[in-house]
Amino acid sequence: MTSLDAIAGTAAPGTLYGIGVGPGDVRYLTLRAAGLVRTVDVVAFFAKRGRQGNARGIVTPLMGTARQELRLEYPVTDEIPAEHPDYQSQMIRFYREASASLTALLESGKSVGLLAEGDPFFYGSFMHMWRRLAETFPVEVVPGVTGMSGCWTRANLPITWGDDTLAVLPGTLAEDQLVERLRNTDAAVIMKVGRHLGKVRRAVEAAGLLSRAVYVERGTMPGERIAPLAECGDPAGAYFAMVLIAGRGRQL
Amino acid sequence: MTSLDAIAGTAAPGTLYGIGVGPGDVRYLTLRAAGLVRTVDVVAFFAKRGRQGNARGIVTPLMGTARQELRLEYPVTDEIPAEHPDYQSQMIRFYREASASLTALLESGKSVGLLAEGDPFFYGSFMHMWRRLAETFPVEVVPGVTGMSGCWTRANLPITWGDDTLAVLPGTLAEDQLVERLRNTDAAVIMKVGRHLGKVRRAVEAAGLLSRAVYVERGTMPGERIAPLAECGDPAGAYFAMVLIAGRGRQL
Repeated sequence: MTSLDAIAGTAAPGTLYGIGVGPGDVRYLTLRAAGLVRTVDVVAFFAKRGRQGNARGIVTPLMGTARQELRLEYPVTDEIPAEHPDYQSQMIRFYREASASLTALLESGKSVGLLAEGDPFFYGSFMHMWRRLAETFPVEVVPGVTGMSGCWTRANLPITWGDDTLAVLPGTLAEDQLVERLRNTDAAVIMKVGRHLGKVRRAVEAAGLLSRAVYVERGTMPGERIAPLAECGDPAGAYFAMVLIAGRGRQL
Repeated sequence: MTSLDAIAGTAAPGTLYGIGVGPGDVRYLTLRAAGLVRTVDVVAFFAKRGRQGNARGIVTPLMGTARQELRLEYPVTDEIPAEHPDYQSQMIRFYREASASLTALLESGKSVGLLAEGDPFFYGSFMHMWRRLAETFPVEVVPGVTGMSGCWTRANLPITWGDDTLAVLPGTLAEDQLVERLRNTDAAVIMKVGRHLGKVRRAVEAAGLLSRAVYVERGTMPGERIAPLAECGDPAGAYFAMVLIAGRGRQL
């Protein structure tokens, strides 16, 4: 029988890979993602200042020794609001420099795997590199299990049934916007809850959904926490937190 | 270095596994899913009458020989509308019988892996078995790459940027409902387009989004087709078809 390694395949020179590493558990990388993490010349990843980098942490069991790594460290994360001109100018400079580093590696013929938490094309920082580099270099994007799939799986919460609609909403939305959108959907995932937990909770309650809402922090990762939102009093949640409201469509 | 097979792990006796097999390409199974497909005593799957079963087709390269399989054949698919009482009564009987078949296997101590296209808890038929069996038997659900992730990856379409909202809408919604929901989101995925393609196209046009909409049929599978929705004149699309509209949030 073909081995998993043979199905996973290997990396090609001079190619940029956007590798979805899934929600947190290394077993939730796809075969293709795992094959690439093991065979690219350079493993690149974004990380917050002073932190290991979450995507990099996820793939540790696959890394072996003596691998070339490229750490791309964000100059800011949430010290400055994303709407602030300083945030935007610092991040644009950072992404420009990061893409120059990747360009140098790719031009030298190396294969580079840029790790992305969850799925690269779903709110991924990888996208900022992709739009700068995809016209110049061969690129392969490997889809991943999203963080939200990981969370609803661990919460034992089938999220959409039958013809349910699903709204994915960032916790950064204004409270009245959150309420309105929650009222117009069957199921909902509120992402990036972080320091918006108090507002998110008020909005969920105003939409009449508090009894159905589940809070999930660090889903599939060490330190995972799952609780009814109604029991989460803390005004600020963890960065990797989301709120899930399952639909109640056709259950046959 | 640890082999992929060792990370993937194996199946335990008497346990039901809901195995997300991803969007279509066998390389997009997770390590855990692949490990389970190879080691469960029985590979179970849903299939339409006279067809191989899409999930079963996806895992063929992992199956080897002499495996025990359980084919669960839907009595109806879209010959009868889902709202019709005949559809519902036939499907309820079918799911009851399917869960009895699974129960017999689990009670005899066998491990059973029920395949689910995409992610088991995202519009999955697996959910109908889960709600009947999860209180009686040990169950492990393995999240998967969704069909929509596979489609936006192949369409080269990063779907959500920055603080974009995303609406996942079934093509079965009424036309005015589709229009209203499309007007109130930044990004959208319209699933289960199938024979609703004409209506979906009119709704997308009425919402002013036709120039941004991409049609994807059989994403990541043989026979994949990707085209601007504006160029899709056929009144009926394939069953595995969706329409994608990417958000245009913060691009740094």
